[in-house]
Amino acid sequence: MTKINVEKCAKILREKDNILILMHAHPDGDTLGCGFALCRALLKLGKKARAICGDEIPKKYNYLYSDMEMPEFEESFIVSVDVATETLLGALQEKYSGRINLCIDHHATNSEYAEYLLLNADAAAAAETVLKVVKALGVKIDKHIADCLYTGISTDTGCFRYASTTSNTYRAAAELIDLGAENAMINRAMFETKTWSYAALERLAIEGMEFFGNDKICVISVTQDMYKKTGTNEADTEALPPLTRQIEGVEIGLTLREKADGSCKCSVRTYESVDASVLAGFFGGGGHKQAAACNIECSLEEAKKSLVEQGLKLLS
Amino acid sequence: MTKINVEKCAKILREKDNILILMHAHPDGDTLGCGFALCRALLKLGKKARAICGDEIPKKYNYLYSDMEMPEFEESFIVSVDVATETLLGALQEKYSGRINLCIDHHATNSEYAEYLLLNADAAAAAETVLKVVKALGVKIDKHIADCLYTGISTDTGCFRYASTTSNTYRAAAELIDLGAENAMINRAMFETKTWSYAALERLAIEGMEFFGNDKICVISVTQDMYKKTGTNEADTEALPPLTRQIEGVEIGLTLREKADGSCKCSVRTYESVDASVLAGFFGGGGHKQAAACNIECSLEEAKKSLVEQGLKLLS
Repeated sequence: MTKINVEKCAKILREKDNILILMHAHPDGDTLGCGFALCRALLKLGKKARAICGDEIPKKYNYLYSDMEMPEFEESFIVSVDVATETLLGALQEKYSGRINLCIDHHATNSEYAEYLLLNADAAAAAETVLKVVKALGVKIDKHIADCLYTGISTDTGCFRYASTTSNTYRAAAELIDLGAENAMINRAMFETKTWSYAALERLAIEGMEFFGNDKICVISVTQDMYKKTGTNEADTEALPPLTRQIEGVEIGLTLREKADGSCKCSVRTYESVDASVLAGFFGGGGHKQAAACNIECSLEEAKKSLVEQGLKLLS
Repeated sequence: MTKINVEKCAKILREKDNILILMHAHPDGDTLGCGFALCRALLKLGKKARAICGDEIPKKYNYLYSDMEMPEFEESFIVSVDVATETLLGALQEKYSGRINLCIDHHATNSEYAEYLLLNADAAAAAETVLKVVKALGVKIDKHIADCLYTGISTDTGCFRYASTTSNTYRAAAELIDLGAENAMINRAMFETKTWSYAALERLAIEGMEFFGNDKICVISVTQDMYKKTGTNEADTEALPPLTRQIEGVEIGLTLREKADGSCKCSVRTYESVDASVLAGFFGGGGHKQAAACNIECSLEEAKKSLVEQGLKLLS
């Protein structure tokens, strides 16, 4: 593994062709924005490039790629974007594990699995770094690339709210808006639009909130039954984790989702007092200081008990 | 009334002393941020200055002014900030109406009541313009002024979400963060912190949501009874209006609050299809294209009926 800077990254990409870009499973705006922005930039350079994800991409992200035509080809260079560890590739892991040439990421917990690693852990979103790479590639950023990168930045910062947001993040957003990014449309679609079914799920989730440890831990539990009742699925739960941390006094917010196979996934949100990636790390997960996640191979009730126990230890 | 630019505004302020700054009633982050930032800047210039509001300032804004000492004096120059019409001064209106020398504002509906008007209707927040004025005054912006102005910008844009947010808004935020504004703390306090009592009120409000006109109009009704049940008051309702507009398909969101005297206040939120200031204008109110408000001298039920009727006309 060789750590590289933006210029070296651009140099490597310029020399390659038939580039396959991998985005992480349970895709969010940052991995998708980075993947499609980089793909668009490489296509503009006359290269063959394609961005793929192991999971279905939620409909609300259609605008990132609906106009694109991505060619088929035999890949000769593999790039991952916003993917901290190979396990996060989900369905793509088996095929591409150990074969990734370049990783562009912003997770301090990156497991250094790629041949080359461009890591900026100070960036609020991987898209901040991909913006620099696209510029270093000499590609003229068009409206579509700007929309993709703005989406990555906006979604990974909770629309510029989170502590990870720096003045550089704001400057990148300003630059992308001047290049055509439709910030109003994007933020409306990402943050201001609740489907009827999501609104129903959110209501059930809020009604079922539980509190532990002098109300410092807030837990939302999403069961398969709740998906059935509201016509939703796991992809609809993305907006729930921030709700846990919004109640005054809460230091740890846990959002547990029961999977169809009986195991569960937990999103961890914290403030300064607890490192979310440490709590998720106990269970084999990872992420950032105030936002992390893990999968646990047990029932929702058992996972909740274990997570709350570990959380209480970290708070004490 | 003379319309002036930023430089002229700074020139006028430099020539004056004993400056009283008026903020609007039902104060929000923009009027408070502008008022206290301008006051701090004038104090730094060695002038006597004081910023006042006709209503009590909600506790969460304490950090804007808790360290300040504002002198007492007989005012000889009166400035209003973020105040579109004199009626919005509330309890201060009677005393200061017709006496306001300078108004700094960003509402296109400004009624031009002041001797001098510095109006930038393209700014997402009045704080964007006050930032320019403070710089033109030659004042070195410290952390406190930066916190005030960042608060104005962040709150008036729903934390950089609304369509009014431009690349200039993002650049102003970047500049203020570099000058010391604690964006993470501010956004946590403004957007990520729900008191237990507010969370209870929000739950009741969501449970009682009503829909009209093929679900294009969403209404939240807040009654005096709901305040009693949850231990809240009107000042706690600031975060409710955006909820109305978040459900898919909603074009007009109405948030009605029953007042103790039996009249009511309505916040109007819209998207492109309807001008919120036009709808509020039917009832003597005003505001922006996608966010406006009005007071109606009748019961909540009657006000709802009238507003929905007018809303349906605007949608047809």
